Amino acid sequence: MEITTILLIASAITGVIGLVYVCILIRSILKADRGTQKMSDISEAISLGAQAFIKREYLYLGICVVGIAILMAIFLDYRESITFLYGVVTSALVCWLGISISTRSNCRSCNLAIISFPGAFKVAYSAGAMMGMCVVGVGVLSICIIYAINPDLRLLVSYAFGSSLTALFLRVGGGIYTKSADVGSDIVGKVEAGIPEDDPRNPGIIADAVGDNVGDIGGMGSDLFESYVSAIAAAMFLGYFLGPKYVILPLFLAGVGILCSIIGAICVRVGEAGEKAFEQQTKLVRNAMNRGLIISNVLMIVASFFIVKWLVGELSAFWSVTAGLLCGLFIGWATFYYTADQYSPVKNIARSAETGAATVVIEGLGQGMMSTAPPVISCVIAMLVAYYVGGLYGIAVAGVGILGVLGVNLACDCYGPIVDNAAGIAEMCGLEKAIRHRCDALDAVGNTTAAMGKGFAIGGAALTAIAWLAAYFEATKVKVASLTDPTVLGGLFLGGLLIFLFTSLTMRAVGRGAHFIVKEVRRQWHEIPGLMEGTAKPDYERCVDMATRGALRYMIVPALLSIIVPAIVGIFAGIEALGSLLAGAVAFGLLVALFMSNAGGAWDNAKKWIEAGNLGGKGSLAHKSAVVGDTVGDPFKDTSGPSLNILIKIVGKVALVMAPLLLALWGKKF
Amino acid sequence: MEITTILLIASAITGVIGLVYVCILIRSILKADRGTQKMSDISEAISLGAQAFIKREYLYLGICVVGIAILMAIFLDYRESITFLYGVVTSALVCWLGISISTRSNCRSCNLAIISFPGAFKVAYSAGAMMGMCVVGVGVLSICIIYAINPDLRLLVSYAFGSSLTALFLRVGGGIYTKSADVGSDIVGKVEAGIPEDDPRNPGIIADAVGDNVGDIGGMGSDLFESYVSAIAAAMFLGYFLGPKYVILPLFLAGVGILCSIIGAICVRVGEAGEKAFEQQTKLVRNAMNRGLIISNVLMIVASFFIVKWLVGELSAFWSVTAGLLCGLFIGWATFYYTADQYSPVKNIARSAETGAATVVIEGLGQGMMSTAPPVISCVIAMLVAYYVGGLYGIAVAGVGILGVLGVNLACDCYGPIVDNAAGIAEMCGLEKAIRHRCDALDAVGNTTAAMGKGFAIGGAALTAIAWLAAYFEATKVKVASLTDPTVLGGLFLGGLLIFLFTSLTMRAVGRGAHFIVKEVRRQWHEIPGLMEGTAKPDYERCVDMATRGALRYMIVPALLSIIVPAIVGIFAGIEALGSLLAGAVAFGLLVALFMSNAGGAWDNAKKWIEAGNLGGKGSLAHKSAVVGDTVGDPFKDTSGPSLNILIKIVGKVALVMAPLLLALWGKKF
Repeated sequence: MEITTILLIASAITGVIGLVYVCILIRSILKADRGTQKMSDISEAISLGAQAFIKREYLYLGICVVGIAILMAIFLDYRESITFLYGVVTSALVCWLGISISTRSNCRSCNLAIISFPGAFKVAYSAGAMMGMCVVGVGVLSICIIYAINPDLRLLVSYAFGSSLTALFLRVGGGIYTKSADVGSDIVGKVEAGIPEDDPRNPGIIADAVGDNVGDIGGMGSDLFESYVSAIAAAMFLGYFLGPKYVILPLFLAGVGILCSIIGAICVRVGEAGEKAFEQQTKLVRNAMNRGLIISNVLMIVASFFIVKWLVGELSAFWSVTAGLLCGLFIGWATFYYTADQYSPVKNIARSAETGAATVVIEGLGQGMMSTAPPVISCVIAMLVAYYVGGLYGIAVAGVGILGVLGVNLACDCYGPIVDNAAGIAEMCGLEKAIRHRCDALDAVGNTTAAMGKGFAIGGAALTAIAWLAAYFEATKVKVASLTDPTVLGGLFLGGLLIFLFTSLTMRAVGRGAHFIVKEVRRQWHEIPGLMEGTAKPDYERCVDMATRGALRYMIVPALLSIIVPAIVGIFAGIEALGSLLAGAVAFGLLVALFMSNAGGAWDNAKKWIEAGNLGGKGSLAHKSAVVGDTVGDPFKDTSGPSLNILIKIVGKVALVMAPLLLALWGKKF
Repeated sequence: MEITTILLIASAITGVIGLVYVCILIRSILKADRGTQKMSDISEAISLGAQAFIKREYLYLGICVVGIAILMAIFLDYRESITFLYGVVTSALVCWLGISISTRSNCRSCNLAIISFPGAFKVAYSAGAMMGMCVVGVGVLSICIIYAINPDLRLLVSYAFGSSLTALFLRVGGGIYTKSADVGSDIVGKVEAGIPEDDPRNPGIIADAVGDNVGDIGGMGSDLFESYVSAIAAAMFLGYFLGPKYVILPLFLAGVGILCSIIGAICVRVGEAGEKAFEQQTKLVRNAMNRGLIISNVLMIVASFFIVKWLVGELSAFWSVTAGLLCGLFIGWATFYYTADQYSPVKNIARSAETGAATVVIEGLGQGMMSTAPPVISCVIAMLVAYYVGGLYGIAVAGVGILGVLGVNLACDCYGPIVDNAAGIAEMCGLEKAIRHRCDALDAVGNTTAAMGKGFAIGGAALTAIAWLAAYFEATKVKVASLTDPTVLGGLFLGGLLIFLFTSLTMRAVGRGAHFIVKEVRRQWHEIPGLMEGTAKPDYERCVDMATRGALRYMIVPALLSIIVPAIVGIFAGIEALGSLLAGAVAFGLLVALFMSNAGGAWDNAKKWIEAGNLGGKGSLAHKSAVVGDTVGDPFKDTSGPSLNILIKIVGKVALVMAPLLLALWGKKF
């Protein structure tokens, strides 16, 4: 048996191990008690809302997918359309499972918080880890299966394209949903009626909790599933030009990454916190999660050194992996610096709130733009290092490096919304203060660990997007797309424009979606007697339904834009112009995504810093102004910013899938 | 005598005619009476403040210029450093003259408004036209002189570079000045103390009025002087590769454009308005100004048809000119659509104000991003049309086409701040209502005609910037700067990053500058007894001084950034990487500039629409929220947006000036 075959089987086995670990985690979560009837009811309502949204979303996705699959079968190859469908379905299933488990974990974590801090943490972290391992396990296993059946690497391209499409729908739709519900129920609840967040009298709160699950779990999971399989597929595709060992290397590295992730995740445990102070509790949790991250990353670096040396003999791919990992770490650190309240950017934003809402917005926008410098520079450096040691293949492998231990990274990301939900349930059920305090401590960590995860997600997206651009140029055999050619220059302008239009549409969609919720909540308060007195129950389902309709309606245009614009430019302006459109979209998209995510995060924490008692604390002018900044930041950081991450990757895939068609059209040979 | 020599002389004569017309206009303005002692005093204070700022600004400029001139003489050629200095000095002189006359016209226009509506209009328009004609006259004449002395086209490049540097300082410094003063005095005056705008008790108002002159007259004038000479120089430079007739054509077209502009400007007259309603008065003025624009443009198109046909025999350059002109018109129309209150974008922004400041900011940002589509698409189309009919030369000639009748366009632009000042003086002097009403009618037109002028300015900047990029590639003999090369791709990312950093710095500078003014005004209210009662006079000069210091301090870093970044990238990353940095900066800069200008304009008009009595009018929640949007928009539309227009042009010039050095460094032959 050849070495590549053995490694393929080995990779498949790691995928299976990942999925076995997923089953163990699910069992351990479901073993825990659902808690009181009330907790269970709330959790059930959230779960039903999420299912309803996902069902409707998948219906839309299905229609779009069938159309594209038919076009692919006609113009390209029926096999590609099959793996495309396979990509859509696996990604959709992973996200559905993730949401199902997360909406079952929130009440369990909340219930366990009554008796045990480590228990509450464990359930939430297990649910996050389950999502993470499910993504990597399914990803690696699917690629192994496709590659084993037919080693034509174009099939992996269409597989990755399928996963991108699901991610696009879930990220954009979920992002609009979560922020419409959040902003809408905040406007009527906190601002107009003056009732606290998560107050059960607010008909919008279930929709808000559903949003956390569909936006943050479903959206994030599908996004990283997409990045993960894309990075592997792009590296395998580019490895084809170097030889079979280079094709299998990224896949095997990813497989080993699964094992490293599992070991890391197992090491994440917290001891009994007792009645410790809030800061100590959060520190305990943060240390535990960081331990998992550090262990996996160190294992991954060591393992990749030996694997690369043994398999291909020279170390260039190892340096690429290392460059990718360091880039991810640095971006994570920079994100933390620009969005955490102990550093000057957030403090400057908070101080500018003292002179009003306008200055807080200006300062936040300015800091957000400034914050793009470290990540962009480090991405450029990582790209150049990876390129000079390993060529275009090196860039793709660097992407695999960043996403290698995705299993454990994603665990931290998905942990956040679960404990957020748990804290919400504790509030809605009116649990006693010490327990709510514990839930809040778990929640606080969720917000800060997200920075590191985001760094990896953004770095991974950028390098993967660049790798896909390279793959597009390789596939179309375009040796030159020169900026001295005005057509190419025009493509660059249109790529930038695509980013602005997409951002504008997704950002404004949140405002419109929120408008629906506001009207519905006002209607219920008017028409349902006894609601504000707490004697009648609000109609949560209608708000959920409103948010669903709004999100899906406003998702269509931006989603289609990201597929149709590259197609049109490729067909009418040529292969080179499409290449520069991709380059423009990636460069522009990365900058705008970083700007929006960081500005949003910084505004959020500036508000929290003021709420913690600085500059007059809650209720001061500074606080009111900071709330405006935070609300502007909501669609920035949770809708448009993350959606752009998908956009910059999907345009490359559309282009690559269309490559044979374009070559035929423009008279070149594939 | 050769035909090219004859045309050179003819062009020089048109330049002289332009300057003679300038003298006639100045005479006619200064003949008018300065008005009452109070008007004269206020005007004097504004004039002194502006002179003080300009003097200090020119000192900083001088230091920077001397340094660059020495470097140029050492590394390049002493002749280039002489024309560079010549460019700096002519641009600086034109702006100084423009500001001097405009600060002398405001009181005269205000005084004439007491007796005659057409008289008040005529003085203000004459001052604007004087600035416009001065720019084109000096521009064409200078180029003729340099070219006559030494027909080495690189000397024109350094001349254009000199004018760019002046423009950079005036636009960035003036932009920060005007908005610091405006935002600062509004925050303490309107918001904190609740006194009306332009109330003489506010120590910041003179600084505010000075800001209108240095920012809008000086900044705009230097900006368009720079665009104008750059467009001509780039076209002549690229024409060199086609033959001597192609070199002289753009210069001669510009010369004929001066004559067309003068004829257009002479046709601008309004009849006696009597006691007509506000709308009729504004209509009268708008029609008069549009008449001037239409006449000049039609004359320009007809003239260029015959000139091109006669001189070079084939019409490609004519089609390029036409493409440029149509592009400018279309951008003007699109700008009007997105920023005027009769269309849906502004109305949507106003309506979103009903749910608070956050939604108005989100909607404004969204609409601003959306508004970039028509101008960007039309620029791309104009570029491609110009390229396919006339090659790279065609693109440069299209830029000359847009800016051909700059004289009369700039007249409309500069008219705005003069009547704004006149209306302010009327308010400060407490003139009777009918007279203030007349001044306001003149002012209202100033705001709407600006849209058309902006369209031309932006289109001109974009096409000129692209032409300079092309000239850079020609000069460095780079046939290929391919996006398939990661170094080139990296340049693109850094070009985008440069735009974000520059925008962030200029935007935040306004906030910091305003902070100085706020503190100073508060201090004066505390320490000067009787100020609020109107018995004591505030110390206007100190506010002027504060604004000057703030603007100059915060101008340094962004200004240097735009020169140093291209230099570093060129020296360390190579000629191709610098080319893609330019391309990235142009594409990114154009989009961000359009976004910021339009969003700012739309917020401004949304606020005015509410103030006109819609959605609850002044004092409503919607109005308060709209004021936040307007304040965010202030640095958008008057500082960062316009400064980006200069940035995208200056980076190309830095690159082109450095070209011989780069070629020597990277081992290629010039």
